[in-house]
This record gives sequence, structure tokens and C-alpha cells, in this order.
Amino acid sequence: MSFPVDVVVMAAGKGTRMKSLRPKVLHRLGGRALAQHVIDCAARLSARSVIVITGHGAEQVEAGLRTPVPPGDTPAPALRFVRQEPQLGTGHAVQQAVPALGDDGVVLILNGDVPLIGQATLETLLQACDGQHLALLSVDTGGDATGYGRIVRALDADRSVHAIVEHKDANEAQRRITEWYSGVMAAPAALLKPLLEGLTNDNSQGEYYLTDVVKHAVARGLVVRAVTTRDEVEVAGVNSPAQLAGLERAYQRRLAAALLEQGVRLADPARLDVRGELLCGQDVEIDVNCVFEGRVKLGDGVRIGANCVIANAAIDSGAVIHPFTHIDGEKLGVSVGSGALIGPFARLRPGAQLGAEVHIGNFVEVKNSTLAAGAKANHLAYLGDATVGERVNYGAGSITANYDGANKHRTVIEADVHVGSNCVLVAPVTIGAGGTVGAGSTITKNTAPGALAVARGKQVALDNWQRPTKRKP
Amino acid sequence: MSFPVDVVVMAAGKGTRMKSLRPKVLHRLGGRALAQHVIDCAARLSARSVIVITGHGAEQVEAGLRTPVPPGDTPAPALRFVRQEPQLGTGHAVQQAVPALGDDGVVLILNGDVPLIGQATLETLLQACDGQHLALLSVDTGGDATGYGRIVRALDADRSVHAIVEHKDANEAQRRITEWYSGVMAAPAALLKPLLEGLTNDNSQGEYYLTDVVKHAVARGLVVRAVTTRDEVEVAGVNSPAQLAGLERAYQRRLAAALLEQGVRLADPARLDVRGELLCGQDVEIDVNCVFEGRVKLGDGVRIGANCVIANAAIDSGAVIHPFTHIDGEKLGVSVGSGALIGPFARLRPGAQLGAEVHIGNFVEVKNSTLAAGAKANHLAYLGDATVGERVNYGAGSITANYDGANKHRTVIEADVHVGSNCVLVAPVTIGAGGTVGAGSTITKNTAPGALAVARGKQVALDNWQRPTKRKP
Amino acid sequence: MSFPVDVVVMAAGKGTRMKSLRPKVLHRLGGRALAQHVIDCAARLSARSVIVITGHGAEQVEAGLRTPVPPGDTPAPALRFVRQEPQLGTGHAVQQAVPALGDDGVVLILNGDVPLIGQATLETLLQACDGQHLALLSVDTGGDATGYGRIVRALDADRSVHAIVEHKDANEAQRRITEWYSGVMAAPAALLKPLLEGLTNDNSQGEYYLTDVVKHAVARGLVVRAVTTRDEVEVAGVNSPAQLAGLERAYQRRLAAALLEQGVRLADPARLDVRGELLCGQDVEIDVNCVFEGRVKLGDGVRIGANCVIANAAIDSGAVIHPFTHIDGEKLGVSVGSGALIGPFARLRPGAQLGAEVHIGNFVEVKNSTLAAGAKANHLAYLGDATVGERVNYGAGSITANYDGANKHRTVIEADVHVGSNCVLVAPVTIGAGGTVGAGSTITKNTAPGALAVARGKQVALDNWQRPTKRKP
Repeated sequence: MSFPVDVVVMAAGKGTRMKSLRPKVLHRLGGRALAQHVIDCAARLSARSVIVITGHGAEQVEAGLRTPVPPGDTPAPALRFVRQEPQLGTGHAVQQAVPALGDDGVVLILNGDVPLIGQATLETLLQACDGQHLALLSVDTGGDATGYGRIVRALDADRSVHAIVEHKDANEAQRRITEWYSGVMAAPAALLKPLLEGLTNDNSQGEYYLTDVVKHAVARGLVVRAVTTRDEVEVAGVNSPAQLAGLERAYQRRLAAALLEQGVRLADPARLDVRGELLCGQDVEIDVNCVFEGRVKLGDGVRIGANCVIANAAIDSGAVIHPFTHIDGEKLGVSVGSGALIGPFARLRPGAQLGAEVHIGNFVEVKNSTLAAGAKANHLAYLGDATVGERVNYGAGSITANYDGANKHRTVIEADVHVGSNCVLVAPVTIGAGGTVGAGSTITKNTAPGALAVARGKQVALDNWQRPTKRKP
Repeated sequence: MSFPVDVVVMAAGKGTRMKSLRPKVLHRLGGRALAQHVIDCAARLSARSVIVITGHGAEQVEAGLRTPVPPGDTPAPALRFVRQEPQLGTGHAVQQAVPALGDDGVVLILNGDVPLIGQATLETLLQACDGQHLALLSVDTGGDATGYGRIVRALDADRSVHAIVEHKDANEAQRRITEWYSGVMAAPAALLKPLLEGLTNDNSQGEYYLTDVVKHAVARGLVVRAVTTRDEVEVAGVNSPAQLAGLERAYQRRLAAALLEQGVRLADPARLDVRGELLCGQDVEIDVNCVFEGRVKLGDGVRIGANCVIANAAIDSGAVIHPFTHIDGEKLGVSVGSGALIGPFARLRPGAQLGAEVHIGNFVEVKNSTLAAGAKANHLAYLGDATVGERVNYGAGSITANYDGANKHRTVIEADVHVGSNCVLVAPVTIGAGGTVGAGSTITKNTAPGALAVARGKQVALDNWQRPTKRKP
Repeated sequence: MSFPVDVVVMAAGKGTRMKSLRPKVLHRLGGRALAQHVIDCAARLSARSVIVITGHGAEQVEAGLRTPVPPGDTPAPALRFVRQEPQLGTGHAVQQAVPALGDDGVVLILNGDVPLIGQATLETLLQACDGQHLALLSVDTGGDATGYGRIVRALDADRSVHAIVEHKDANEAQRRITEWYSGVMAAPAALLKPLLEGLTNDNSQGEYYLTDVVKHAVARGLVVRAVTTRDEVEVAGVNSPAQLAGLERAYQRRLAAALLEQGVRLADPARLDVRGELLCGQDVEIDVNCVFEGRVKLGDGVRIGANCVIANAAIDSGAVIHPFTHIDGEKLGVSVGSGALIGPFARLRPGAQLGAEVHIGNFVEVKNSTLAAGAKANHLAYLGDATVGERVNYGAGSITANYDGANKHRTVIEADVHVGSNCVLVAPVTIGAGGTVGAGSTITKNTAPGALAVARGKQVALDNWQRPTKRKP
């Protein structure tokens, strides 16, 4: 755009129908707050600033939203919050933002509870505004618009907007109009500010309505333009849990379609949930009912089995994640090397860093541990705060006792070690390279490279032992 | 209602198309037998009695249904079974109930394989009956009624029913009628009984048809009323596994809509299954693909992760159930305290009673055990028949050996105990408060408060040990 | 058919829009390569031979397809591959097959990326061909056919085909035709070969088009017949991951409908995935979100819980598979005896053979092991390369150490043995019948029948032990 854009996000409403203690605009869609979607969209538009109008739950809302990250080298817009107290209507809300709006810019007014508004649509709206005009975003799907404010246009070629007529005030002919106002508008600040000043609250609700600026603009002989979208999803607001769930599905369908388009194979696009960013290489396959959260990167040829939950992780090319695997790197991240085999029923926790061809099998948990290439922990095991060398075989049922009840300590298992079944390695401890730990041993002291370490009781037998018998109840 | 209502439930049919050994009316929808839905609806209508007509698989059906529990203080209706042997048609079925029907009541005839019949609709039907009239429930969706018995009404303002005309007997004009008979009727017993007596079986099937009472009533100059529903789901019968599956989905969509309406956030309303009663506090969130069975209570702010199966449990406010958690309290129940963190991959079995802030982590099973506030069992562990004190830390891989092969015994772990990894506590045994059990220990004797108990072999080493080498195949 | 049928499968295309390194016809639908579906359909038609035309990724395609297995005693058709290099159009592709086509047969030309072509439809097409005519398969759903080649028919009673007119060449009237050519044709080889010889590439793409044989046939005065299907799914081609996903769902809906029809109860037909063959007895119940792969057989009354993944296994009557169970027999298979209880969170791996009434509980892995009737391993355990006798109770946390780091050895647990918790049985080892292994024991030597074997350290105590204290960070 040739003019700076300042975005105003309406986020003061209570959202009573959500029946929640959480302010409405903080409810999550695709893992992100509703209003954050709007703010992030503003960043993609290269907005100069984003002014969020808060009211109900203002402190929570202000704490729950963050400066957006625009793509590439675009500078992030400045994020500011303006309180609307008390809440006297949508026009009053925008009035609160006036001091924060530069006179040289165009003001784009978005709703914090309309999360899927499209960048392309807004760019068209801003072009229609063109730094000079009041421009409205309208919706027309050709269907019934009952309940919505109808857009009444001039009959001439220009088709400029004459009025927005609320449903209850509309006559028969107007009710047949299928074009309605979305709540989104753009206008130069220099034009908008006096219109806002002219708003009055002489209506039954005693509120200052933002839509009244259209009436005033028309009264002053200004041209009001309208840009129309046919996509109801991008103007859909969230007022109830049912609407939130409906929009979540619409959002997930879009994400799934985009993944398919880039070549990802999805066993069932209707059973995929991405709440964050999922980056996929070539020939990635994702089976049914998987959930991805945060930032997840899947390399070429990665296969994700059914019913996996994966968050904040990077999985290298050719790795196979079997069904029922739970991975969450949280802030530390998880990395899985190329050709690794994980699961089923594996859990990788923050700081699990697995090298190439590592195998993590069923009922195995790995936390804050590094496993070098070719290491294996295939059955019922725990590796926490451990450094595991190449080709180590970590036996079934073995545990790193990393926590002494007060502090956490590190276990080092050097390359080519074979740890038997049901062992405990009591940290801090080092098992020397190429060594062996006998099954059932609890190891508390370091072992030398190549040594066999055993710590177990001697096997004794009582012949013809009489087992307990069932008590009578 | 100002008159007593006696409900007759038709439940004698075989249901050949179900291709099942189970009698049709015992097939389950939302976890309850089809006929039980109908009986429970009768209870919500405050019926005086419910008479179930059984035939095919009568013993199984009679054993598989139970006295309904009406809401609040309403007394439960008396549940009686009447056998229809042999089965000579729907009219014959109701004839069997005649001795059980008081002359002072209204008889409401429902079908045991039409599970989702609505209480409000039946109340309207009973009002139309008004203790005086034969009243039919008809269906009109405005669509094609091919195959159904059409309702032919008088042309006058009263629009009383003249006849039910079977599809095969209908003329062109009658086939265009979109209103059809649902199989549900209400009539005063005093009026219905003589009509039933008048039934004959002079038709091609040699059966006594209940619908013929309409013909006889009209012939006697009685007014027959019809109440119409537009909801096909509430009159839908189950004749095949496909119909059962379709109705199950319709039922689940209704339950999901009701949960959303009360403020529960569902990640995907189409991937929720509730088979029983799910009571939710405020700000409950349920992720995709969860199944709830029996009676489950979720407190304020409870979050249920993806792919959980939860039955017969009470989960207190603020608890978080991570993905892949399996809870089933069966008859003993399971309780989870406020702020507890459970899963992923946890299993809580009958009698698990977890206090506030308890943590149960991956691959941990808890059965018939009490854990006091703040106790933790985070990794690969089994707690059975145990009493665990506050703040106990139960190590990875540790097991309560509660079963000696014949009897079960109790393990007591007092407050602030730290049990190391891969321990076995052989019940009956008590670990005194504040004590520690060293990793890898098998504890068979009680330990004193504050003591460190260890039972393990001494660590020995064989230097330069030669590991077995791969056999040649 | 009274004439031999030779099937030509077009499988030389690249499938650029799949954005995959894998040749398009090897992408999988219901677990089978797209072209394999077509080949298998040819076998059900009792084709004499199947000639697959390969090109892009020819070696991969040829390695990835296999001789079909026809039903019953029908001999399998000979499977041959013919390379098309370079690819000069669909007509050129079929020309490559000419040397492989006997003059006495009918040639049926199918597309390797149209996997769900129906046997009944092709039989009708072959009847229309009747060993004499060129017969085309057309599609007519009554809807818009934009983009497709329209079938222009004679106006007489015969309604023989005059031409296939490509969308871009069609006039207004032709564009209103809703019947279009599917790409499938049948013709006697003796008739087809000269038509193929007559093809030219004097068009804008410089390609030899197979559809041009229609033009040449009509020019020669031959009768061209068309058989019409209304089922778009059976002629749907796969060109993109979105189309593949869409067709996968259509395929799964068909399988689910067939299972319901035979009496299987599915909790949600839209959440079932069968990739292979699922054989079900009477009164089988399958809960939501299950995946079946390879060949799976479920006996009478088997119940499969939610979220199970089951492959290559036979489960006997009355067995119950609880939620979150993962079974994969791969080549060795898995068998589960009647009345067995498996899961939740169980994993059965290749060679697991479980007798009647066996119980395998949570977090238990069984691999290449035989468990006799009534044996139980209920909690956190590993059984690998083991032979387990009747009524054995295998304790929580117990492990068979079957791998010494180089070779695998066998563990034998004879009947009525009780293995305590957290034991290790170091193979090769035998626990004699009726014996007991004490909790926490590592057993390295055989034990006598009836004996109690224990191998553990003596329990010692340090009173008033001071646990480590939290380090200051």
C-alpha cells in the first residue's frame, strides 16, 4: 500500500454466550487466541500499528496477546492496547483509539472475534479505500441474510453505498437484499475522525454505533465503497462454543487442503488437527487422527502413524513415527534423527535429541537426553537426563534414576554399551564404552570401559515350596 | 397430565436384519439398550407404569432392561413385562397388555426400537389425547413418504384423521401426501380396549394390526387426532446395523450440541462419544476423539486431551487429563483431585482415589489405591491396593506386589516417602513416613520412619569382559 | 465370458500433481497400490492376461505390483509389463502392448490410476463388446460434464456412438451433453490392432491419442457401443493428494457399509479404516477410530475397543480387545484365543500366539511367544521368545531377557508358575512347572518344578537417613 495502515481490533466485548470466565477474544482456534489471528493478519498486511481496544477482562486480554511476527523482513507492527471503559458501543470503542491514530494513515477496523478474515480480501478493501474513501467489507453468498444489516447501494454504475439498514428496520425490498455488512471497514484517519466525532447515542440502546459513520458520510456527500466477499468463513464471528467449534473445523479443513496441495498425503483430511505450524518435506504421510501443536517440522519421507500427538519437534527425513506416539518438546524442543523408528506408545519429552537410526520402542519415555546414532531403547524404559552413545542397547525395563528426591543428575552411557533388562543406573554415573551391565543390576558406581558390571543377589532355591493359598473370604 | 399414563413398549420383534444373536431392542445406542431409552423416556413423562411386550428373546430382554430412574422426586413407574407368544401382529401384542392396563388411564404405545422419541413430542400427543381421544403421532418433513402409511385427514378445520392408508393401498393422490404414521399412539384405556377387541386378522399376513384400531374408531364415529413432528430422528426405528450406526451419530450430535450450548468447548463435535452421563462444570475443554462412558463428572476448568477413554469417574476442578489416558472406575469409581495431572498413557482403574495435585505419568497404572495430595508416580509404575501419603515420590519402574498368587495384600507408603526406581514393595508392607527406599530394592519388611531401606546386590565388575558374539545362522 | 480377455493397464504416467518421488500408480488406497486395485479387478474378471504399460518410474512400478490372486479356483492371469519409452500419448501406450495381445481375445483397456473401477460394470462392458464391437465405458450423472470428452450418440434406437468430442472442441449443444467418456474401452484385438495402426500424431500436442480409435472405427462404419455408469467413484482418477484422500474416504465408506450389511456393529462408520481384508464373524463390535491392516480375522462376538490398530492377526470368538491396543503380526501373524482379554495399551508383535482366556494387560509387549490357556501378564511386562504354560501368572514389571547383545534365546515358563514383580528371566532358562520366582529376582539358572527361586539382596536399613537436599541453583 502507498499509505500507512493502522489496524484497530475490537476486543472489548464480553462474549456472554461463551459461558466462560475467559474473555471471548482469548478463546483459541487452531491453538491461537481469536484476536491473535486478527493481529497476525494485520502483520501480514504490513500494518504500521495494531491498536487493540480492550474492555471486559482487559488485563487478561492484554497479557494474552503478543506482537505479531510478520513474514520475511517486514517490520512487526507496533502493538498497543487502549481501554474502553465503560463500553458504550462499537463507535465509542473506535473513538478510544483516535488519539493513537496518525492523521496520515488509513484505519482498518477489524473484529477480534472474527479470526479467519483473509489477507487478500483486506488488501482489496484497502485498495478500494485508496487512502481517500470510506470502504466497507460486505458479504454476499446469494443466500438469505436474515438478521444482518443490508447494504443498500446506488443504482448507478458506481454502485456506491447509500446505507446500511438493520434487519429490523428493513422494508420488504431491502430484506430481499442478500448483501450484508461484515463489520469491517477501512477509511483514512483524516476522514474517519470527524465522522466518529459526529456519532450520537440517541437510540434505544443508548450506544454509539460504528455503522452510523456510514450514514454521516453519505449525509456529507462522501462516496462510500463496498468490497464484497462470498466467503462466509472469513467474516464469521465467534459468539458461542458451537460457533467456535464450527470455525475450528473450517480452519482445519483449510489447513488440510493446503497440506494436500503441497503434496502431503493425509489418510483422512477431516481427522487432522494442526494448532500451530506444520512444515512438511516431500512424500510425508500422516495417518488418521493426528494432532500437531506448536512448531513441527517433518522431513522428506517422514511417516506419522495413526493417533499421534506431536508438538514442538523436528523429525528428520525418513523417520517413522508409529501409532500412539506422544512427542512434546515444549520450549526445549525434541529432535528425531533421520531413519529413526519411534513408537508405538513412545513418549518423547523436552530435550530429547535422537540421532540417526535411533529406535525408541513401546512404553519408553525419553526426557532431556541425547541418544547418538543407532542407539536403541525398545521396551518399557526411562531415559532422563542421560547422554547415550552410539549403538548403545538399553534393555527392557531399565531406568535412569536421575532424581535423588532433591536434585537431578546426569547418566552417561558411552558408545557400544549393552545395558541389560530391569537395570537402574543411579546418577551421577558413567558406564564406560563397550561395557555391559548385567540384567537386574542397580549401578551406583562408574564402570570401566569394556567391563561387565553386575549388582544382583545370588540365586537360591527352596524346593517344593508351598505357595500361599487362597484365604476364605 | 391430569390422567395416569400407562406406557406400552413393543419389544417382541426379532430384528432379523440386525444379523445378531442379541434381540434387537437390546442393541445399544449411546451405551443404553434401545428399549431402555424408551422406558427412560416414559419415566420422564411421569408414567404410572411401563408394560414391555416381549417375545423373541424374551428372557434376555427382560433381564436386560431395568426400572427407569425419573428425574428429581418423581416416583419411578412400575416396570412390567408381558409375553406375546406366538407373535400375531402389533394389535395382538397390545392385546396382551390389556389385563395390565387400568381403565382409568391413558395408554401410550411406543416402539422399543425407536429410541430417540422425544419427551416434548409425547407430551403434546398426550395433550391431544386429553384423556378422551385416540391420538396418533405423525411425521411430516415435506419430503417423499414412499413406503409409509399415509395419514388421510378430514378437509374441515378440525383436520381429524380419516384413515391410515398403507403405501401399497394408496391411490395417486394419497401417495402425494407427505404426512405418515409413526407407529406411536395414545388413547384412554377405556376407549382403546374395545377397539383392540374388535381387531381381526382377515388379511394376507393373517396378523392383527394395531393400525386397524384407527379404522374401527372412525367407523364408530370417534374423533381421531394426529400430532405431527417434523423431526425424523425421533421417530426413526432401528432395523439394521447401518440404521443403528446412523442413529448413534444423530444421538451423539445432539449430545455434543447440548454440551456446547452449556459452554463446554469441544475441539470436534463430530469426534465425541458419550455413552452415559457427562456432567461438566464451567470452562471444560475436551479435545478430539474422546469417549465417555457411564457417569463422568468433570469439574470447572478440567481439560481432557485427545484420545482419552473415561468411564465412571469424577475429576475435580482444574485437573488436566493428558492424551491417551484410560480411566474406568467401573462400580468402585475413580476420583481425581483438583489440579491433578494425569497421563499421557496413564490408566486409572476401579478404586483409584487421587488427591489434589497428584501426578500420574506415562505408563503408570493405579488400581484400588488412595494417593494423598501431592503424591507423584510419573513413570512406568504400578500401584495396586496401596495407600500412599502426601507428597510421596514413587519411582520409575516401581511396583507394589499386591498379589502373592492367591491373595491380595495392602501396601502402605506414608507421607513424604521417596521410593527409588525399579523397586518392588511386597505387600503387606509399610514404608514409614519420610523414609527412602533405594533404587532396585525389593522390600519385604516394614521400614521405620525416616529410614533408608536398601535391598540390593553389591556391584562387582569383570574387566575386559567378552560379550557373546553373533552366532552364525 | 465366452472369449478370452486381455487387460491392458495404463501405468506409464508421471503424476506431477502428486508432488511425490513415488510413481503415481504406486500410491496406496486402502493399503494397496492404485494399479494393484485395477490388476486385482482384472483377476476377478477371470482375465487371461494383464499387460501393464509402464514408463515413468518403470522399474519401481514393475517391482511394486504383483500377480493378482483371483477368488476361488480361477487361475490367476499372467502379469506382464511392457515399457513405453518415450511416452507419446495414450494410443502409443496401447500400441506397445500389441505384440503381447493374442488375436483371439478381447482387449480391455483400464487406467492404473482409476482404482475403484467396478467388476460388474466391466462385465456389462464386455457383454456390450460381445467379442465383436468397440465398446466404451461412459459416465452420466446428469450433472455438469465441463472439461470431459462428450459422448455424441446416434439419434436412432441403437444410440451407437458417433464421436467423442473434447470439451474445448464442443459446440454449445454438445457441451450440454452430460455423458462423458471414462477412458475405459473394450474391443476384440483383431478389430483394435488395425485401428491402433491407423493412429496419427498430427495434433497440437504431437501425441497419439487412444480416443482417436473411435473416430477411425466410426469412419470405417463400425458400430461403437457405449455402456454408461452413474457412479462417479468407480471412474474417478487420482491426480493429486486431495483426490487420493477423497477416494480413500469413498473406499472406506464402501467397506464400512459392507461390514454393517453383514451385521458388524460399527460405532462410527466414518471412523474406520480397513487396509486389506477384514473378516468378521457374527456379533462383532468395533468401536470408534480403529485401523485394520493386512489380513485380520475376528471371530464371533469379538469386541474391539476404541483407537485400536490391528494388522495381520486372527482373534478368536469372544475375545475382547480393549482400547489403545496395537497388534501387528507382520509375516508371522498373531493369534488371540477365544475369550482372551487384551489391553488397554497392549502390544502384540509377530509370533505372539495366545491361547484361550489369556489376559494381556496394560503396557505389556508380547513378541514371538506362545502363551497357553489362562496365562496372564497384566501389567508393564515384556515377553519375548518365550514359551509360557497354562495358568502362568507373569508379574508386573517382569522381563524376559532374550537378547544377550548378539543372539536371541528362549525362555520357558512351565504351567502354573508364578513369576513375581520386576523379575528378569535371563534366557536361555526354564522355570519348572508350579514354581515361583520371588519378586525382584534375576533368574539365570533353571529352576526345579515346584521350587521357589529368589535372587535378591538382603534388606538393610539406615535409620534416620538424611536425604539429599535441594542444591542452590
